[in-house]
Amino acid sequence: MIGRHMVGNKVQHQLHTPVAQTLAENNITTGHPLEVCIFQNEEGGLIGSEALLGILDDKALDRVSNSGKTIREGIRFLGGDTSKLSSVKREKGSIAAYLELHIEQGGTLEAEHVDIGVVEGIVGINQWEVTVEGFANHAGTTAMNNRRDALLAAAKFVEAVNRVVTSVPGRQVGTVGRIQAFPGAPNVIPGKVILSLELRDLDAAKIQMLYQRIRGEADQIAQASKVTFDYRPINENIPAPTDPRVRTIIDQSAKELGLTTKQMPSGAGHDAQDMARLGPVGMIFIPSIGGISHAPKEFSRPKDIENGANVLLGSLLKLDDVNW
Amino acid sequence: MIGRHMVGNKVQHQLHTPVAQTLAENNITTGHPLEVCIFQNEEGGLIGSEALLGILDDKALDRVSNSGKTIREGIRFLGGDTSKLSSVKREKGSIAAYLELHIEQGGTLEAEHVDIGVVEGIVGINQWEVTVEGFANHAGTTAMNNRRDALLAAAKFVEAVNRVVTSVPGRQVGTVGRIQAFPGAPNVIPGKVILSLELRDLDAAKIQMLYQRIRGEADQIAQASKVTFDYRPINENIPAPTDPRVRTIIDQSAKELGLTTKQMPSGAGHDAQDMARLGPVGMIFIPSIGGISHAPKEFSRPKDIENGANVLLGSLLKLDDVNW
Repeated sequence: MIGRHMVGNKVQHQLHTPVAQTLAENNITTGHPLEVCIFQNEEGGLIGSEALLGILDDKALDRVSNSGKTIREGIRFLGGDTSKLSSVKREKGSIAAYLELHIEQGGTLEAEHVDIGVVEGIVGINQWEVTVEGFANHAGTTAMNNRRDALLAAAKFVEAVNRVVTSVPGRQVGTVGRIQAFPGAPNVIPGKVILSLELRDLDAAKIQMLYQRIRGEADQIAQASKVTFDYRPINENIPAPTDPRVRTIIDQSAKELGLTTKQMPSGAGHDAQDMARLGPVGMIFIPSIGGISHAPKEFSRPKDIENGANVLLGSLLKLDDVNW
Repeated sequence: MIGRHMVGNKVQHQLHTPVAQTLAENNITTGHPLEVCIFQNEEGGLIGSEALLGILDDKALDRVSNSGKTIREGIRFLGGDTSKLSSVKREKGSIAAYLELHIEQGGTLEAEHVDIGVVEGIVGINQWEVTVEGFANHAGTTAMNNRRDALLAAAKFVEAVNRVVTSVPGRQVGTVGRIQAFPGAPNVIPGKVILSLELRDLDAAKIQMLYQRIRGEADQIAQASKVTFDYRPINENIPAPTDPRVRTIIDQSAKELGLTTKQMPSGAGHDAQDMARLGPVGMIFIPSIGGISHAPKEFSRPKDIENGANVLLGSLLKLDDVNW
């Protein structure tokens, strides 16, 4: 199809070359134009795919990363030219399909001895900063029944998050990862606590349902503990489902190679979630030992890497045969 | 009695002069030698009474206070000479009695409309640093039932402290005032939490009983949550009971003035707890509005201040009449 690229495929962890190389060595020319994309430092954010979406504005470029450099400075440091960012922008519908191969970061495939994960979608991520306000007081002279202990209320909140998230079936997750008590001295009852709340699921409505239930529980804690809860949204990534047709093709390709498969969500973010706004996407997971990622101990068995590359190759050729 | 001072009385918050002045204006000479002690900056620690005990060693003098100065520099800054500290040391038994007048910092007297608090003793304070070790992991990819969330376990611990401390009658208090989760990012399950535990009571055995029960609860949390708890003692002040004879005299003096009284522990530390190691001590509390102390909003009604000074005067004269 004119004006429609076929497959922008991305293979993480130096896995990107084998498929394109195999095509070249076998003199295979795809019917659709094929692009191999390597997004620089996906671990640090979705900068590359955001550039393709054309949403990498001045504010995003001025964000300071952990390196101490802004994203703009980082792009220049690597030899890029931020004044030409608009030239890489792709229009919606300009991509026939996008495939991404990645390690599975939850350890599920390894634990269940499954060869290939067929990703159902990239979960939505909602994050809030939650402030609990009580009243700071002398930890020696204030009787237990006279306290408005923000940390005691926060502890009940942390438990409530876990209780609500595990109270319904599904693979949703909820996490309190950051907490700070003020003033933060052993001999002072905390008057204020600031903590993070993060909810992830494939279904944005489910995230909202869980959030409302958590707030309901917090309302009860607030009343019983004479504290207040305040919520400030700090981040929202909407869920990005993969295309069901691409999922079927990945599953078929794996099974033709004698590999076992499992349909599963991706709890982590990926460039595929941005690319889903341009066209149909699919993702292939291979097992990672212990689910460890973004860490020196990350390891994938050579056989699993080979399986992943072969499923990518098979899926790509199948996709090339269809015209949606 | 030769060689025994009668009453080292200390009146906080500029309340110290009226009693000595009244004695002087009425030409009253006590049978025992009388000393008026003003300990500089009691709020910052028990430096003055520690000097009288002779326990203000180099280590204590080198401690850096909130001002940024060491205690040694602070004493010099105020015109003191730390090389002569040994000259102020008092021997055990050299003081016939010690009286201290102070505001009540829990708000109990004001709330219950009682005029005078007769202090039963200064509570013991035990502090621990508690470390909870779980396993840090990706908050998106790690299923809820695969987590070893140190903060979830810590939250259960904070609740357990409150539950254990309030499960038995009495005026004991237990506080978690400081908490920190590591690595402390919204999208990472905390692998480690460090928090403070403080227990206070007049009875050291009760503190130990509560501590053991809390550890028992923590053992169960550890097993259920696949985490470990580790405890490091960081501070221990043993309880300092006041002398029952001095308590009776304070109570009688108040009642002779038509004032209501309440026997109560002091949840906060005072110089009296050090002075109790030299001789019998007593403490008089007056109401403080809202129990607020060490803060700009601290306020005591003039009538309560007058009551306190009169009870101090009456107690002092009664104590002067006895020979223990």
